[in-house]
Amino acid sequence: MYRYKITFAYDGTNFAGFQVQPHERTVEQTLQIAVNKIAKKPTPPLGVYGSGRTDAGVHALAQVAHFDLPFDIPGDSLRRALNSILPLDILVKDAQQVSSEFHARYNAHHKRYRYRVSQGEFVDPFKRNYTAHFKYPLDVARMQQACQDLVGEHDFTSFVAAGSQTKSKVRTIFDARVWRDEHDQEILFEFSGNGFLYNQVRIMVALLLEIGSNQRPIDDIPRVLAAKDRNQARGTAPAAGLYLVDVSYND
Amino acid sequence: MYRYKITFAYDGTNFAGFQVQPHERTVEQTLQIAVNKIAKKPTPPLGVYGSGRTDAGVHALAQVAHFDLPFDIPGDSLRRALNSILPLDILVKDAQQVSSEFHARYNAHHKRYRYRVSQGEFVDPFKRNYTAHFKYPLDVARMQQACQDLVGEHDFTSFVAAGSQTKSKVRTIFDARVWRDEHDQEILFEFSGNGFLYNQVRIMVALLLEIGSNQRPIDDIPRVLAAKDRNQARGTAPAAGLYLVDVSYND
Repeated sequence: MYRYKITFAYDGTNFAGFQVQPHERTVEQTLQIAVNKIAKKPTPPLGVYGSGRTDAGVHALAQVAHFDLPFDIPGDSLRRALNSILPLDILVKDAQQVSSEFHARYNAHHKRYRYRVSQGEFVDPFKRNYTAHFKYPLDVARMQQACQDLVGEHDFTSFVAAGSQTKSKVRTIFDARVWRDEHDQEILFEFSGNGFLYNQVRIMVALLLEIGSNQRPIDDIPRVLAAKDRNQARGTAPAAGLYLVDVSYND
Repeated sequence: MYRYKITFAYDGTNFAGFQVQPHERTVEQTLQIAVNKIAKKPTPPLGVYGSGRTDAGVHALAQVAHFDLPFDIPGDSLRRALNSILPLDILVKDAQQVSSEFHARYNAHHKRYRYRVSQGEFVDPFKRNYTAHFKYPLDVARMQQACQDLVGEHDFTSFVAAGSQTKSKVRTIFDARVWRDEHDQEILFEFSGNGFLYNQVRIMVALLLEIGSNQRPIDDIPRVLAAKDRNQARGTAPAAGLYLVDVSYND
């Protein structure tokens, strides 16, 4: 078998998330159908392994996955073959043959997420699936200062959705920033780290929006982190605003 | 009765066009449901009259319609009431009371349409419903020069979809232009005129794309106009790229 790594974008609007679920259209299942078609439907079917899951409605600009094929094919031919089979809401941007040791999930050492917030009294119809809408004024400088308290190695127990099975809640955030995009009239958040817990980015954004709209003190994050209590962070920002921007490997 | 004019945007992706059709979700029907709800469901139901139809998948940045209500309400209150009832893919941007003589269709004297074309080998998943995809290189200067032949008063019989019931095919185009948007890596077309025939903009764009990709001579438009024959123009560009930008009135 030959192992391949693919990098792909998807519009999460019409997917019930990444992971295969019975009777649902998911990204993983859609990729598996395409890969098995290229491999002439082997038995048992081939699996596709993503760098991690994304929820229903969450988007990706450069998600990564790996799979094995029973033949040797140039990366660019594989990319074009996949794109000619896949529906238009998934686009393979790069495909390459990699070592059989490569694993999209276990070898990932760095992920970056972006979150888009649109402002205004009502949501722009063209942004309803691609941003979260927040109608109250936001103080970007205040959020930019506060989010620096998320940078570093922390126990993110207060920032994980209930029901997460992960044992250690310790993760490292390398970089966090917030800025206003004048062209698109949006507020953008970006976080890079060595991994993120279930709903972590959406919970961090919800808390930062409370700080940015003066519903919480600017220095509240150290207190919430120390509490190790999900009830301290409260909200979860909507899925539609979240994008997996890239996944990095030592390869 | 009091007459109101509304200006509204919609994402056409999930609408079967503007006009009411049995068993289909349309813009006109969706607006009528909201207006009748505000009017406490009178019998017979109130009608909503648009400046003109748009096809399934076609978008609007500022479409205009009028309707009558049995009471006097400030425009801004009406706008907010409609937006709180309407689904997120329609947004009322402005509402105002107008003279009972005002008619959104008969009084419109100027309409502007934009057409977005995305380039690249495969379509960006986030643009699949918002642009037409054209993968071959395009010569913008060539299209910009050619489209000047559309400006002025012409018989557009060669540029109307078969089956149009309109008697006169004479329309005036005030302005036509083509440019490259570097930020979004798109080619944009814009046309303003005193009215457009069924599919006229999409047929004009399809022909300009043939000129821009050297499949037709640059001076082909006068010949096609003079032929008064739909078969001379051939294609129709996809609905997803088309936007009604605005409608002007003497008011």
